[in-house]
Amino acid sequence: MIAVYEKRLWKRVMELSAIGEQVDSGGVTRFSFTEEERQAKNLVISYMKEAGLVVREDAAGNIIGRREGRDPLAPVVLTGSHIDTVPHGGKFDGALGVLAAIEALQRMNELGIETLHPIEVIAFTDEEGARFGFGMLGSRALAGTMRAEYLEYTDERQYTIAQAMEIAGLDPDRVFEAAKRPGQVKAYIELHIEQGTVLEDRNLPVGIVSGIAGPLWLQFTLVGKAGHAGATPMIVRRDPMHAAAEIMGHIYREAKKHPNAVATVGKVHVIPGGINVIPGEVNFTLDLRDIDETVRNQLESSIQAYAVQVCKENSIDLQISTLQRVAPAPCSPDIMSIIENACRKTGLDSLTLASGAGHDGMQFSNLCPIGMIFVRSRKGISHSPDEWSSPEDCHAGEEVLYHTILQLAMGN
Amino acid sequence: MIAVYEKRLWKRVMELSAIGEQVDSGGVTRFSFTEEERQAKNLVISYMKEAGLVVREDAAGNIIGRREGRDPLAPVVLTGSHIDTVPHGGKFDGALGVLAAIEALQRMNELGIETLHPIEVIAFTDEEGARFGFGMLGSRALAGTMRAEYLEYTDERQYTIAQAMEIAGLDPDRVFEAAKRPGQVKAYIELHIEQGTVLEDRNLPVGIVSGIAGPLWLQFTLVGKAGHAGATPMIVRRDPMHAAAEIMGHIYREAKKHPNAVATVGKVHVIPGGINVIPGEVNFTLDLRDIDETVRNQLESSIQAYAVQVCKENSIDLQISTLQRVAPAPCSPDIMSIIENACRKTGLDSLTLASGAGHDGMQFSNLCPIGMIFVRSRKGISHSPDEWSSPEDCHAGEEVLYHTILQLAMGN
Repeated sequence: MIAVYEKRLWKRVMELSAIGEQVDSGGVTRFSFTEEERQAKNLVISYMKEAGLVVREDAAGNIIGRREGRDPLAPVVLTGSHIDTVPHGGKFDGALGVLAAIEALQRMNELGIETLHPIEVIAFTDEEGARFGFGMLGSRALAGTMRAEYLEYTDERQYTIAQAMEIAGLDPDRVFEAAKRPGQVKAYIELHIEQGTVLEDRNLPVGIVSGIAGPLWLQFTLVGKAGHAGATPMIVRRDPMHAAAEIMGHIYREAKKHPNAVATVGKVHVIPGGINVIPGEVNFTLDLRDIDETVRNQLESSIQAYAVQVCKENSIDLQISTLQRVAPAPCSPDIMSIIENACRKTGLDSLTLASGAGHDGMQFSNLCPIGMIFVRSRKGISHSPDEWSSPEDCHAGEEVLYHTILQLAMGN
Repeated sequence: MIAVYEKRLWKRVMELSAIGEQVDSGGVTRFSFTEEERQAKNLVISYMKEAGLVVREDAAGNIIGRREGRDPLAPVVLTGSHIDTVPHGGKFDGALGVLAAIEALQRMNELGIETLHPIEVIAFTDEEGARFGFGMLGSRALAGTMRAEYLEYTDERQYTIAQAMEIAGLDPDRVFEAAKRPGQVKAYIELHIEQGTVLEDRNLPVGIVSGIAGPLWLQFTLVGKAGHAGATPMIVRRDPMHAAAEIMGHIYREAKKHPNAVATVGKVHVIPGGINVIPGEVNFTLDLRDIDETVRNQLESSIQAYAVQVCKENSIDLQISTLQRVAPAPCSPDIMSIIENACRKTGLDSLTLASGAGHDGMQFSNLCPIGMIFVRSRKGISHSPDEWSSPEDCHAGEEVLYHTILQLAMGN
């Protein structure tokens, strides 16, 4: 019987990945409010119907498949993920979470299981933000965190989100109607590929997510004094690269002190950029994440204080500006226990790990308890045609999701 | 009488700077083997003749003004600098050294002073290397360090140095005839603006150079593993920017331990360069200088060893390639004493400082003892229309040069 479920899930993953598949790269490109996305949604609708779910599309274009509970008015258990992709993306990122949830509900129906709570599987609109540089559109709408001004973001051809919605047959003015209200939702649970190598390194198919780290993006601008690399003694230099190197060193060393913190300096510009010229200005970015906002705030304070001190000592003018500050979303300890039980029922060892990448679940953190299940991702490669999770691992994840949803929806 | 010398020197500095002066920037542009350079050489020849010198042009285009000694066969005392400039350069870099030397010799003639040794003032061809990306052409030829392959360097229009020489009426095959032989030269002494702020900071018009630092240019290439800034825990990252920051920090801290060492990281490239992407590769350059090659070698070893260690600890592939390695040229302690005496005679406090920038004198370090006199440079600005040394400081430098040359040429 297990083989049947595994084969069905895998077949659907492969079928869905054919929509938007690129001839050149073998990658999948499905941007929001495009023809490819519409086709993908229609295919997902057909799967939901095969699974015996009642399907509707909400005002944000989210596809929702509902399995009724014994008490239709009881808070609903939500599960799902997204079906859009980055350009030339993979077959699993997002899609696997939607299809595994459909599979889990189809299995419940086939086994004739009743639950107290209704369960809804959602295929969210535009999580990646690849088209408008601003993502999680569907989950924002459903979780009630959408704002009117977000609809003014534009794509490359200067279409706003609102215009793109209209072209796709959606009414942007009604997008707020998609929002769930507090008390209506029991939990949000999402299965997703890891996009990292923690599970692979530990040789585990499935992991329990402890929280979704929120990125804080800072831009450091250090201005000193340019000069001839030969003619200025070290003691009188105002070299912003020196200060920048010390600050970066501090950043990495501090971040390593916290198990879930990650710090990345991804962009560095040195001006004017001559081998024999002391730089006059250095800019660099910091992407700082932790699943615990207190830890991230501590790190930010430590880094800022150190940067101020180093720049003062080196007579460097320092400016730090915030490009983005997203609150981390810790997962519910109760749901983590339920996932752990589900792993045990599935016969799997479990491991708890943080999600450094953002996911739709972040939007729900003020609405309901959230939980996430990670599936092992080969070499951690993601956002690439080489993204890969084995059929066995996808199935293992689906089984853990099945037991988790069942436990949440049973009621006591 | 002092006022007369000062006015004459200043007038010549201003006259010479008008040749190649740019209407837009106010800077001076005189590239080698151009019409501007020819005009400048002709003006210098007229000054040399006014000073009572016997003038010739050697096979490298160097203009040489000779003041005979009581013993015409005694080793000659050489003094001079260059009259080419960088694009939109200043009025003083190079030119002041040539004109101050002419002034010093003219003064000797006017005062009827005899010396045992002949003295030659040289206006060198192309020190800056602005046209061919390869400089010190005249001093290489005269010091015997020129090589045939150097003449194959090309300018922007693909003219080789040899071709440019021919167009200017010089025979590149005869350039080696310009070389002085060991034993023919008693000393080389050059006056130059400081191009730094050490003298300004100490409120001194003139400084004694302890040596000319040779630049060592290294290129560091660090290759790690790119990845998502969120999804890879710090402990499993292979982030080359982390290793690069630690290496740079070490470079600056080590260089500061040596009073004459300077270290500059002027170029940094981070690949791929996304805010939320762990870099896969980081390249940076190091310009490392000291007037003592032993110190520079020690620093290089320490930096290399540290870099190897850090990269090993962080699983980073490291490559260090040498882009340029120029031997430092220490100044002669005897000549430094003579300059110190000359400062005393001029009524000036003196300070010893290293030259981080390269100068024609470097070419002479294997041929004869060398010495250099620095003149205060406002704000250390150089290679710019804003380059400035006051008439008083130029005169003070010339007086120190006068006494120094006199002492060297007197014989005992």
